[in-house]
Amino acid sequence: MEKSKYLAKQVEHIDIKSFDARPVIDSMAKMSFSSRDTANAASIFNRMLQDNSCSTILTLAGSTSAGGCMQVYYEMVKNNMIDAIVATGASIVDMDFFEAVGFKHYQGSQFEDDGKLREMYIDRIYDTYIDEEDLQKCDHIIYKIANSLEKRPYSSREFIYEMGKWLASSNAKKKESLIQICYEKNVPIFCPAFTDSSAGFGLVKHQVENPKQHLTIDSIRDFRELTDIKIKAGTTGLFMIGGGVPKNFVQDTVVCAEVLGIDAEMHKYAVQITVADVRDGACSSSTLKEASSWGKVQTVFEQMVFAEATTVVPLIASDAYHRGYWKTRKPKEFGKIFL
Amino acid sequence: MEKSKYLAKQVEHIDIKSFDARPVIDSMAKMSFSSRDTANAASIFNRMLQDNSCSTILTLAGSTSAGGCMQVYYEMVKNNMIDAIVATGASIVDMDFFEAVGFKHYQGSQFEDDGKLREMYIDRIYDTYIDEEDLQKCDHIIYKIANSLEKRPYSSREFIYEMGKWLASSNAKKKESLIQICYEKNVPIFCPAFTDSSAGFGLVKHQVENPKQHLTIDSIRDFRELTDIKIKAGTTGLFMIGGGVPKNFVQDTVVCAEVLGIDAEMHKYAVQITVADVRDGACSSSTLKEASSWGKVQTVFEQMVFAEATTVVPLIASDAYHRGYWKTRKPKEFGKIFL
Amino acid sequence: MEKSKYLAKQVEHIDIKSFDARPVIDSMAKMSFSSRDTANAASIFNRMLQDNSCSTILTLAGSTSAGGCMQVYYEMVKNNMIDAIVATGASIVDMDFFEAVGFKHYQGSQFEDDGKLREMYIDRIYDTYIDEEDLQKCDHIIYKIANSLEKRPYSSREFIYEMGKWLASSNAKKKESLIQICYEKNVPIFCPAFTDSSAGFGLVKHQVENPKQHLTIDSIRDFRELTDIKIKAGTTGLFMIGGGVPKNFVQDTVVCAEVLGIDAEMHKYAVQITVADVRDGACSSSTLKEASSWGKVQTVFEQMVFAEATTVVPLIASDAYHRGYWKTRKPKEFGKIFL
Amino acid sequence: MEKSKYLAKQVEHIDIKSFDARPVIDSMAKMSFSSRDTANAASIFNRMLQDNSCSTILTLAGSTSAGGCMQVYYEMVKNNMIDAIVATGASIVDMDFFEAVGFKHYQGSQFEDDGKLREMYIDRIYDTYIDEEDLQKCDHIIYKIANSLEKRPYSSREFIYEMGKWLASSNAKKKESLIQICYEKNVPIFCPAFTDSSAGFGLVKHQVENPKQHLTIDSIRDFRELTDIKIKAGTTGLFMIGGGVPKNFVQDTVVCAEVLGIDAEMHKYAVQITVADVRDGACSSSTLKEASSWGKVQTVFEQMVFAEATTVVPLIASDAYHRGYWKTRKPKEFGKIFL
Repeated sequence: MEKSKYLAKQVEHIDIKSFDARPVIDSMAKMSFSSRDTANAASIFNRMLQDNSCSTILTLAGSTSAGGCMQVYYEMVKNNMIDAIVATGASIVDMDFFEAVGFKHYQGSQFEDDGKLREMYIDRIYDTYIDEEDLQKCDHIIYKIANSLEKRPYSSREFIYEMGKWLASSNAKKKESLIQICYEKNVPIFCPAFTDSSAGFGLVKHQVENPKQHLTIDSIRDFRELTDIKIKAGTTGLFMIGGGVPKNFVQDTVVCAEVLGIDAEMHKYAVQITVADVRDGACSSSTLKEASSWGKVQTVFEQMVFAEATTVVPLIASDAYHRGYWKTRKPKEFGKIFL
Repeated sequence: MEKSKYLAKQVEHIDIKSFDARPVIDSMAKMSFSSRDTANAASIFNRMLQDNSCSTILTLAGSTSAGGCMQVYYEMVKNNMIDAIVATGASIVDMDFFEAVGFKHYQGSQFEDDGKLREMYIDRIYDTYIDEEDLQKCDHIIYKIANSLEKRPYSSREFIYEMGKWLASSNAKKKESLIQICYEKNVPIFCPAFTDSSAGFGLVKHQVENPKQHLTIDSIRDFRELTDIKIKAGTTGLFMIGGGVPKNFVQDTVVCAEVLGIDAEMHKYAVQITVADVRDGACSSSTLKEASSWGKVQTVFEQMVFAEATTVVPLIASDAYHRGYWKTRKPKEFGKIFL
Repeated sequence: MEKSKYLAKQVEHIDIKSFDARPVIDSMAKMSFSSRDTANAASIFNRMLQDNSCSTILTLAGSTSAGGCMQVYYEMVKNNMIDAIVATGASIVDMDFFEAVGFKHYQGSQFEDDGKLREMYIDRIYDTYIDEEDLQKCDHIIYKIANSLEKRPYSSREFIYEMGKWLASSNAKKKESLIQICYEKNVPIFCPAFTDSSAGFGLVKHQVENPKQHLTIDSIRDFRELTDIKIKAGTTGLFMIGGGVPKNFVQDTVVCAEVLGIDAEMHKYAVQITVADVRDGACSSSTLKEASSWGKVQTVFEQMVFAEATTVVPLIASDAYHRGYWKTRKPKEFGKIFL
Repeated sequence: MEKSKYLAKQVEHIDIKSFDARPVIDSMAKMSFSSRDTANAASIFNRMLQDNSCSTILTLAGSTSAGGCMQVYYEMVKNNMIDAIVATGASIVDMDFFEAVGFKHYQGSQFEDDGKLREMYIDRIYDTYIDEEDLQKCDHIIYKIANSLEKRPYSSREFIYEMGKWLASSNAKKKESLIQICYEKNVPIFCPAFTDSSAGFGLVKHQVENPKQHLTIDSIRDFRELTDIKIKAGTTGLFMIGGGVPKNFVQDTVVCAEVLGIDAEMHKYAVQITVADVRDGACSSSTLKEASSWGKVQTVFEQMVFAEATTVVPLIASDAYHRGYWKTRKPKEFGKIFL
């Protein structure tokens, strides 16, 4: 079978406007187990949107953007549901930016022979395929953007802002990307481990070819900037897809403010969707109750949903979309702090 | 806090007719990970319903009936989607029969102090509560039914049939129970470990008080009867909620037919929804591909969905309800074999 | 590749006497996460063995007997650590009896093509293989034993006792089987879903060929007998491998005694090793704290260990073997109740 | 209860020299399921140590250092088993450095009331406690180290090297820390998301108080340096505890070398211990076979072990310690590249 046959069926991203999840969520609220947890997560997210004083932060880890949820996050930002994003580099660069410049993810199979895929330069994410050659082109664009910028330290937020600007300057092949809408709506995106992504390849190449004078990504500054946002925001709510660095990073801003002598509120609302298993003591799986012992998250409005995100996030987001609390919500435009 | 406050909020069972899951399932089919698996499970189930030669068998393990899916299974039987059921005793007696005689499940919390619950005679299933006193009344009804029957060996199917007859004889407090609709529509229900349930208490009491002459539950006969159905059915499709004994039992009928010298078809269609973890080699988590090595299940139309059932089963069942293939499907009425 | 190459490497069962796990367990007791849970489980099991008033019940679900732990359970019984067993039919018939009559399990791979295995009549349990032809011979022996017995209702315990007697009558190819040692030491084995195993095939064949007069397996009697043991035992401790029917069944004996008007002690000690995921509300994964809300298990000495059993059970059992509390422990010989 | 009572029982780290795991591992090799996987992981790790051309890289994610494995990693480095480390910031700063400066982790309980813990300034990691006041002192030391250094961009490796130097300069309260032994043996440690840890607080404070002139952590340089090591190393083997950024980062060096025009070998050996669930498409859970489709890892010698690391890592490491292949292994001293 030739390569094109493996890459025949594109992943199409679910459109939360195309169906109304409210009746399902309403029913789930009256059930038990993970369905009730899902409904409660939706309820807490709606509460965040209704609370005028609350700033919302979306965190992304894992591959849900590749797996069909990319448009979900776009719609959430577009419709004023999200004020800041903390993500893995992969979610932002390898997935969102990758599609913004015209490439695609494909429906594959977890049972395929990886040796065969390797020969064809097809990368596999569980049951999803990527054309490795496309990914290399994507790396190269990062490299060119890096070359075009002033040689100085950047936060990841700043660099991603430049990626957004680049897309908005008629370079985007697909208009509806998370990076571009965030650029346009002043929603800052942070990748605390930015180099741990396709961006890393282009940036390393940039430094190697410019050994004396090159840009750097200052990860301390990322933390400073996100803490500034936390301090400015006051009341905050977290909507977390997966765990990992984004989850820990955003929670730590409360403590960081404290270290700077500022008494910041714990995150008032928090929702996490994950399949991570609590018993290994890792951050990804640590409960929000546990986070409260650290003084990071309050426990009145928190909900862990132990589910693979692609099955429940579309329901929660569609529910929020159709309840419509975002309609009267004012964008916080935290990106303007840094302009 | 007094007991009644703990038992204030009833679990209400989701109604698959009240929302149309087709657009969500259609979108999920174009995504990846568990959402695509969910959509594929729905597609396979619809295929079973469209295949006139196919008899469908529902298996139930776990507590989804207590957790808000009880009405899902009722509607599936009522609307000719299911021809036979294999279940744990708990699903049938402690949950379905329990509600049929007028009792309820309640929304509780997995974080409650179990010692306190014990003192109040409240039984906990994860985040769901049961009034232990109600459960004892339920045991007692089983005891009385057992006393009223002829003293001889019964299959669990036969005894459950008698429970259905008893409900239908103006004893049901809630009309829409799985046991009663199965009785009325000649859909046999098997509980291969029937005594391992609330029924066990009533039946043991019956035997203890009638040491010389009493009814018995012959589990060999269960297997014979279910194998007879498999042989008669020809083409079969499995819709499995959880794993456990019901999953193994129904799969083994193919082998059992073989042992009797009859060349039965492998199960042609198979879907399982579970959170069980494949790496322990147990039956509950064993994949359907593994079952194919045993000659039990074909692999063309099989799908494991690793998800907590209350989150995805309502979507799959609602999709099937609204696609409507059941409308032209003829009931198999396997119960008539045994009349 | 021919069949014999697939079946080239036998599973060899770990010998808990061949290494001393005490120093590892002692170290684990000072750590955290699942290692500490493992050490605590070992400590509770040792406590059961030291408590002269305590009767111990082993429950087996899953395929650990096939996966290399078969000798562990044999040694536990041989060395007076266990007074009764409740198991799935597969553990007792398809695995233990199967090897007792001379057959073997083989090291395989979970990545093998199941279609190819099917063609060769090789059955797969995750990464372990069985020769289907051997399994059919095993079914046939059950059939012959059934034919040789008096035609009346049996409990599974009674039938398994007959299997032990058959093995002990010079029929065993491998002397050290669980069934035979239990027969010899009067340790009763219960399989509440006995027919849901390889035994089922032989028993169904027996009934089909003897339609008028045949033996039956009365599952009510199983429950009565196990409850009798619970009542007689007084203080009890559970050592549970996996969950499923055996876990529920043994826990329910406390309630069953109550229904019979006898105030039985809750199980005083309880340990469960499982990978089951608590969030689905099923019995296999339900915590022992949850069981205490039902009045089944006390919570002072209980420990869930979330681990794949083959990795930790050998450590716990070797620790108990080398601590040696079994040396002064008196066998309860509950089997004698029924002689 | 007062705070000191909650912090009464220290976590003591397991000593892989104090017991010989070889007989257990040898037995596990003949079993099935996760025990065989554990044995195979041990075998692959021993193979790495025997292969003179192979450089070994340890990755750490999760909290196993807090949970009792801290000394395991120390011994592995001390005994020439490891040539480079990639870790989460927490493993290195919050756990290893934290104990090096004299603080402790404590055995706690996952069932404790987090509100109560919060009031006492006790942070919880699943069943393990930390004194928040100690952690703040640890942050402050980082702040002081940062203030003492030249104001310029650092890689995390470079900063951690300075931490090692500081400890070695008579500042360590506990001599046997991973940071110090790595400093002394020229084993570089990378934290690609260094700021996402207790270090972040001190570093942000440093920048805020030195707004004009301050040090930065350049995450691009981390990637460059690790890629340099990969290129220099040639043959490599990965020993991965958990997944997350460290896993992805080290695997990506192969691709990064390629982007720089250098044809680097895929990682030849790879072992990962994790409880992460493969079905969510995230990096932490992605199999090593999947990584091979990306051209990162070869598939001849790879093993995923799905287990909570504290239960199996001590066995694997003790086995390697006692087999003794490290005795004739030459340290690679990659740290010298950067001196």
